[in-house]
Amino acid sequence: MTSFTDRVGLEVMTTAECDHLLATTAIGRIGFIADGDVVILPINFQFVGGTVVFRTGTGSKLSAALMHRPVAFEIDSFDVSLHSGWSVLVKGVVSEITDPAELASIATTNLKPWVDTVDRDRWVRIRPDEITGRKIA
Amino acid sequence: MTSFTDRVGLEVMTTAECDHLLATTAIGRIGFIADGDVVILPINFQFVGGTVVFRTGTGSKLSAALMHRPVAFEIDSFDVSLHSGWSVLVKGVVSEITDPAELASIATTNLKPWVDTVDRDRWVRIRPDEITGRKIA
Repeated sequence: MTSFTDRVGLEVMTTAECDHLLATTAIGRIGFIADGDVVILPINFQFVGGTVVFRTGTGSKLSAALMHRPVAFEIDSFDVSLHSGWSVLVKGVVSEITDPAELASIATTNLKPWVDTVDRDRWVRIRPDEITGRKIA
Repeated sequence: MTSFTDRVGLEVMTTAECDHLLATTAIGRIGFIADGDVVILPINFQFVGGTVVFRTGTGSKLSAALMHRPVAFEIDSFDVSLHSGWSVLVKGVVSEITDPAELASIATTNLKPWVDTVDRDRWVRIRPDEITGRKIA
């Protein structure tokens, strides 16, 4: 297969590769603006119907969600000893999932919060405008 | 040792814990605004004198640097099977390192670019305004 590199020498991944990695990764990081600052927070997620779905309670992540603000979402994996790895960047807009049928279908996935001391009773999704991936082979 | 949890149930790490993790981690992620979008990119870095130092060439990361814009920088590690892990978030402002003495001292660290097809001849640093860490034990 022909591969392409970007202008900083990283190999450009195909959409299929990016989708596969999103479907098989458990933890990613959401980047957004809160009170004028850039914030990056890890989240556990699932890639459902081409969208990044995760649970949240009240707080900054949900605030961003409710305001339909653009966010970034990133997954990666690196082998420090081999100097190899990959990363996928999703740009999109977050919205809360409120449709009962859709909530019922998502509730059948096994996306459980890692910390259960607070209610993470809301589901949000990032609908991608753009998905890009790079790797160092 | 007494430990504290934040309002979403995560254990708050001490400054010493955050510093130790920054000093012993090779890859982090920088979050910044480029053309109005939030972007998250992995970088290999070193924690030098309480600052996050990395190399770059021309491009968006350096542009952000030269404009002295606020950025976020995140490191994390998770064990998906145990549902445990930690993350550290640095908020700060990026600037280019131009002082010759300082460049000489940094050049003795073993921070080499993973991809050498382009010149990453500039050094930049994130000077933290705030470092916070959370863990799920």
